[in-house]
Amino acid sequence: MLLYEALATQLRQQIERGTLHAGERLPSIRQLAANHGISTATAVQACLQLEREGRVQARPRSGYFVRAAAAPLPAATAPARRRTPGVVDNPALQGVLDMLARSDLVPLHTATPAPALLPAAQLAAALSRQLRRHRAVALDYAPPQGHAALRRQIAQRYAHCATTVAADEVVVTAGAMEAISLALRTLTAPGDVVLVETPTYHGILQAVAALRLKVLEVPTRAGHGIDPARLDTLLQRTPARAAVLVPNFNNPLGSLTPDSAKRALLDSCARHGTVVIEDDIYGELDWSGQRPRPLRHFDTHGNVITCGAFSKVLAPGLRVGWLLGGEWSDALVRAKYFSTVGSASLPQLALADYLERHDLERHLRKLRRTLADNGQRLREAIVRHWPADTRIGDPAGGLSLWLQLADGSSGQALFEAALAAGIGTSPGHLYSSRGDYADHLRLSCGQPWNDDLDAAMRRLGALAARLPR
Amino acid sequence: MLLYEALATQLRQQIERGTLHAGERLPSIRQLAANHGISTATAVQACLQLEREGRVQARPRSGYFVRAAAAPLPAATAPARRRTPGVVDNPALQGVLDMLARSDLVPLHTATPAPALLPAAQLAAALSRQLRRHRAVALDYAPPQGHAALRRQIAQRYAHCATTVAADEVVVTAGAMEAISLALRTLTAPGDVVLVETPTYHGILQAVAALRLKVLEVPTRAGHGIDPARLDTLLQRTPARAAVLVPNFNNPLGSLTPDSAKRALLDSCARHGTVVIEDDIYGELDWSGQRPRPLRHFDTHGNVITCGAFSKVLAPGLRVGWLLGGEWSDALVRAKYFSTVGSASLPQLALADYLERHDLERHLRKLRRTLADNGQRLREAIVRHWPADTRIGDPAGGLSLWLQLADGSSGQALFEAALAAGIGTSPGHLYSSRGDYADHLRLSCGQPWNDDLDAAMRRLGALAARLPR
Repeated sequence: MLLYEALATQLRQQIERGTLHAGERLPSIRQLAANHGISTATAVQACLQLEREGRVQARPRSGYFVRAAAAPLPAATAPARRRTPGVVDNPALQGVLDMLARSDLVPLHTATPAPALLPAAQLAAALSRQLRRHRAVALDYAPPQGHAALRRQIAQRYAHCATTVAADEVVVTAGAMEAISLALRTLTAPGDVVLVETPTYHGILQAVAALRLKVLEVPTRAGHGIDPARLDTLLQRTPARAAVLVPNFNNPLGSLTPDSAKRALLDSCARHGTVVIEDDIYGELDWSGQRPRPLRHFDTHGNVITCGAFSKVLAPGLRVGWLLGGEWSDALVRAKYFSTVGSASLPQLALADYLERHDLERHLRKLRRTLADNGQRLREAIVRHWPADTRIGDPAGGLSLWLQLADGSSGQALFEAALAAGIGTSPGHLYSSRGDYADHLRLSCGQPWNDDLDAAMRRLGALAARLPR
Repeated sequence: MLLYEALATQLRQQIERGTLHAGERLPSIRQLAANHGISTATAVQACLQLEREGRVQARPRSGYFVRAAAAPLPAATAPARRRTPGVVDNPALQGVLDMLARSDLVPLHTATPAPALLPAAQLAAALSRQLRRHRAVALDYAPPQGHAALRRQIAQRYAHCATTVAADEVVVTAGAMEAISLALRTLTAPGDVVLVETPTYHGILQAVAALRLKVLEVPTRAGHGIDPARLDTLLQRTPARAAVLVPNFNNPLGSLTPDSAKRALLDSCARHGTVVIEDDIYGELDWSGQRPRPLRHFDTHGNVITCGAFSKVLAPGLRVGWLLGGEWSDALVRAKYFSTVGSASLPQLALADYLERHDLERHLRKLRRTLADNGQRLREAIVRHWPADTRIGDPAGGLSLWLQLADGSSGQALFEAALAAGIGTSPGHLYSSRGDYADHLRLSCGQPWNDDLDAAMRRLGALAARLPR
């Protein structure tokens, strides 16, 4: 056994036996090296090994911490004990929208990074600069397809995930939500079947329902993503015009579909005549630091429309997203025109300016680490303070943590109790067209850890313990 | 005969006989008074009388000018000699969209005020100020319904046209186009009939078609607007779920529906169960200086959703419009959420800031005069340089001038020839769902008059003369 392996084995045993418990810091690299008479390089190697195994997690400038060995979510979602109305016409939706207008809540409800995690000063400088230099253009209509400078920058970003994109096929939108909505409107007619993952973001389900499309749900699993065999069987039985998929860190699960599965599901969709609308809005937020490739990278059939946005990595409030429209680009521009004419000009110019001057990768590296850290701390807090048997997701990336409450407790009841206590959460039943996941809850990983958040997580745990079973 | 009447009669005869021709300046008030041995007050009274008659027009700081006695548009639109495909799937649309991305054209194609006519410096100052003071809020998601400060300002604006609006029912949108689209999506299901004016803005026709709604067209007439009796007959025959009406300065005609007709058509719609979607985006742009009341003012049935925007009066590129949603407000906010989540924050904060600090009325007074002046100069240029028998609209307000070409010439052909000559125009057949108005053209009144525009209008006249008949 190599020296680093010996140390790793020893630490692993301490974790398994509870000598080192969840959330606890490992001795520093220097201490480990001194205690075991090994080089610091060897100590680092041991810690990296444990990190690969998912047993510890590095936190910037703080060292390695033991990860919570939480009860994982079941491989397939257990049928909810209680059913609620589906997401459409769900009275709970109004509560969710009302909540978005409140700034007095502990914000565990939004799948967005906290403003403090975003490069606000640099973006503000870019906005001011563009306003000074190109005032007339900044206040005038943008071309419906979007400003050329921004479309070039967006196309270039895809080089970071080995994906070739032409600026000509980029259509700038008012965020990813408009992108998805435009793609659906361009591809489908009322009554068409659209395949979606389950669980998935309620905005997608609402957009699909508003267009009078029929929903076909295929499960996505923590740690695995979409099962291509399952997808293929479904499409064989029920032809679907389009599929809205979130293979990279789907909201709410944070699951990542492996590359092999991505290839398989693209083949399957192409074979069945199903156009893929890929929502890649979380693609840049891999907690391990490696940006996964979008479906678009693997698409050999010209059968994918990719949707992206700056909302989760730079500034939600600028409302700038995009479509990679491929052969549908012209049709998408027409749809954009009679949706919102064009996106606001100043934010487009400012984002192009920011991307030209700054290293987005540097900002992303820090953001990814912080989100991973936040997610881990949330998991630890749940293990410590929430009812045992709360099942906790293990996201590979993204901005949210998905929970199954103990003993089939109601997510809506916890959402309401939390709201009354000044804490925002998101009830699970919204993430399915049929009101599944009534005993689930989604929390945001976008908030940097602090004492208020710690207190809120304790409070939530106490509230969860008092829920009727 | 009173002294002023005598002078008015004399001037009127000079105009009718061509002694004073279109575009020519009347002698100054001082000269008129001296020449006729009357007081300046009497000379002013004579000029005001001729202005009321539509024979002369005042230009700020320049005096009174003779208006073009152009051949008016026919009372009812003559059936076009050529028919083209309707607006949807019309290949000409792509050309129109491509044109919007070009900055090298003489911009007679956009129904927007030129940047020079808008308070760009004050808006830029408001954007910078809000960015400095509320950076975090400016970059974060806005509430789906919109920022409260802006909703208050929008509600207050309606006091200027004696209309009571609660901030609670204002829903901020990405311009009026999104507002109309959200209202349609909220009210209708595919297959429903929607009544629209004809001619009307092609964006409205496309939005209606995209939602798979059936179109029922009711004529709007220059100088009269919509005929309520005609509307009532149509609705009796064909029940319509909604009507999208532009009673104040409809695009392209610039016609104003009189208040009595507004009342009558509201009654008619309410009686037939037709909800009115009022597009009031041009409402502030009355060329006589008096803002007309929106349908909403006369609505006693709670049967109107009003759409507005800052695009035509302050800054098109900020993409901020609104809905007055009445009892539909909650449903509209939900639709807004899964359309674009929320509108961009910074533009909302900046517009609220601008409206708080500046007198919008003062800016509007100047803008209205300039647009009226531009419109009159365009009319004069057509009388002078275009083929005789070109029929010219006589807008009461708004941003566009609607023409019927001589001898049934093709508007699309002139559009294409103009584009090749570097001049943007808008072909008439886009303003009808059935491709009527093939021999019409729309020009923008939003460009301040200058030599380039004069040259462009001569060039257009020469091109129009060479069109095949």
